[in-house]
Amino acid sequence: MAKRIEGTTPKQDGYRMPGEFEEQEQIWMLWPWRNDNWRQGAKPAQKAYVNVAKAISEFEPVTMCVPPTQYENAISRISEVNNGNIRVIEMTSDDAWIRDCGPSFLVNDKGGIRAVDWEFNAWGGLVDGLYFPWHEDELVARKVCELAGVDSYKTEGFVLEGGSIHVDGEGTVMVTEMCLLHPSRNPDKSKAEIEDMLKNYLNCDKVIWVKDGIDPYETNGHIDDVACFVAPGEVACIYTEDKDHPFYKEAQAAYNFLCEQTDAKGRKLKVHKMCVTKLPCYLKDADSIDYSEGAIPREEGEISIASYLNFLIVNGAIILPQYGDENDALAVEQAQAMFPDRKIVGVQTTEVAYGGGNIHCITQQQPKVK
Amino acid sequence: MAKRIEGTTPKQDGYRMPGEFEEQEQIWMLWPWRNDNWRQGAKPAQKAYVNVAKAISEFEPVTMCVPPTQYENAISRISEVNNGNIRVIEMTSDDAWIRDCGPSFLVNDKGGIRAVDWEFNAWGGLVDGLYFPWHEDELVARKVCELAGVDSYKTEGFVLEGGSIHVDGEGTVMVTEMCLLHPSRNPDKSKAEIEDMLKNYLNCDKVIWVKDGIDPYETNGHIDDVACFVAPGEVACIYTEDKDHPFYKEAQAAYNFLCEQTDAKGRKLKVHKMCVTKLPCYLKDADSIDYSEGAIPREEGEISIASYLNFLIVNGAIILPQYGDENDALAVEQAQAMFPDRKIVGVQTTEVAYGGGNIHCITQQQPKVK
Repeated sequence: MAKRIEGTTPKQDGYRMPGEFEEQEQIWMLWPWRNDNWRQGAKPAQKAYVNVAKAISEFEPVTMCVPPTQYENAISRISEVNNGNIRVIEMTSDDAWIRDCGPSFLVNDKGGIRAVDWEFNAWGGLVDGLYFPWHEDELVARKVCELAGVDSYKTEGFVLEGGSIHVDGEGTVMVTEMCLLHPSRNPDKSKAEIEDMLKNYLNCDKVIWVKDGIDPYETNGHIDDVACFVAPGEVACIYTEDKDHPFYKEAQAAYNFLCEQTDAKGRKLKVHKMCVTKLPCYLKDADSIDYSEGAIPREEGEISIASYLNFLIVNGAIILPQYGDENDALAVEQAQAMFPDRKIVGVQTTEVAYGGGNIHCITQQQPKVK
Repeated sequence: MAKRIEGTTPKQDGYRMPGEFEEQEQIWMLWPWRNDNWRQGAKPAQKAYVNVAKAISEFEPVTMCVPPTQYENAISRISEVNNGNIRVIEMTSDDAWIRDCGPSFLVNDKGGIRAVDWEFNAWGGLVDGLYFPWHEDELVARKVCELAGVDSYKTEGFVLEGGSIHVDGEGTVMVTEMCLLHPSRNPDKSKAEIEDMLKNYLNCDKVIWVKDGIDPYETNGHIDDVACFVAPGEVACIYTEDKDHPFYKEAQAAYNFLCEQTDAKGRKLKVHKMCVTKLPCYLKDADSIDYSEGAIPREEGEISIASYLNFLIVNGAIILPQYGDENDALAVEQAQAMFPDRKIVGVQTTEVAYGGGNIHCITQQQPKVK
């Protein structure tokens, strides 16, 4: 059985969270099924998830974790695209965002691998969380660690989602104030105390605090819709000059801010621009989503957070959201410029945006142990 | 994803089921939880299963598969005895008999491993099955194969439980007529057709048909309470000279029959005697078992099938049931005589007998690939 490590922190034990661009062992995903979040019984979402898994599986193995009531269906749908690189494992969940409820894997320089199992409260708990209860999601990180045979640190009483952090693997972590200082996460902790937690559990020396995300209501502004590390010393950031775009203000502010930042090693960041969709993405057909007391209702015409920045880096490729938007091709081109040595694989994932996130939110990388 | 192999049989593909005494990779188990089968909310049964897992884990890894509602409890109970060799994985089930609903693993002589995923109908389906429904148990073999990364053959329309067969790994399979010819299993198939299925899916040339088991009502007479292979050419069989013992007739008949049999290679079988309990074991405290429409009720004073023969062979050891009976020590002694090179580890498992089986019934070995 994988152990809980108690009494020490990753920093003390010499473990760090590697950059997403470092070599990976596999990608973990959770299967979508909530009829009160996803349109049309989650069938279109399942198709999108399968397409994402398929795209990733061309480059590295995928483990798709599926609630018991969906096991046969998932096996059947995935077998249609299966190249032998996608495993289907039973795992109960409350929804399908393993970036946020899954573990953050850590490595050391001696071939060791561990993970942080953050406290999870469905993006805000009883203050402004998205659903209740979330106890199955809370167990996901533990179950993944057990499957992977990886010992973990549990941050009892410290709430964090994996989508609210991005690291460079060399001592720098990037977050938003909007999310990490939100009263629904760790209201009893000061900014300095939160910095300390990040530094101790990710083994970082510097926290870059972007002010706002573009999603104030659902994730409370996760960094992974706004900016990420492309390589040590290099970040990508959403960018638009269209003053009428709903993300204009936050994108401009984040871009200008990041251009002035240095990382833990004192390097001034190189900032790559990533476009936003030409047209904002609004939820359609909300009537096909079930009503339930336990989940925040989705409404026709609400804005969906369709960010190209929410891509996933895998071995040799970038799995990039596409929305059927005029700027899809530009996003591919910009991603290729940032990652000249990786293949850019676009996947149509508007359906995932309708549900509240995108490719980065629905995946979790397990780094390769060297 | 592990594949379903279609259009061929293990025999055609050169795969055979190895003897249990051949080297193993790990043992699979399922966690007991049914309040309508186990006493006192299954808590005593869980303790017994943990003790069995602990005993095995001294010799090889164990994967304990646990329904989602029991995951935290199982993690907690197992962590008390954990030596790092027991994994706890989520798996929904209808009950906890992985010998019968799990896969039968197969190997070839080129380092390959596959499995047979038999059709499962809860020991008799709508004729005399023990509970309804059994659809989660039916998926257990598939889920285990997926976790193990092992391709499988599905015997659509052919019902069999792993506890109703024992093989020598060299072309012989031993079964009972009571079970395999029971009208609740494959009533549309003749004895010859059933022989063919066994030969094709286990890669055997000879079927040894013991007439009766000792458990006519629950398993309909599984062989694994009566006799098993100890080595090629050697079997163990239950034996008693006590004419008043409830298993006397069947034990005598099986012993005398096996003494006259030859195996697929023409060897006359050497038959080791395994005692039965001095006193029969009767269910107590049945009032602590829930009533449900879906399960056959257990009644105070019903006989429990407490057989020492229902042991498990693991690498370097025998995990042997103990019942607090006068003959416990004799069973250990007899097992040691059959297996001079293995350690005999007794585990108190009366509670498992109360639920309908014992150590062999609740475990499934995955052979080592050479």
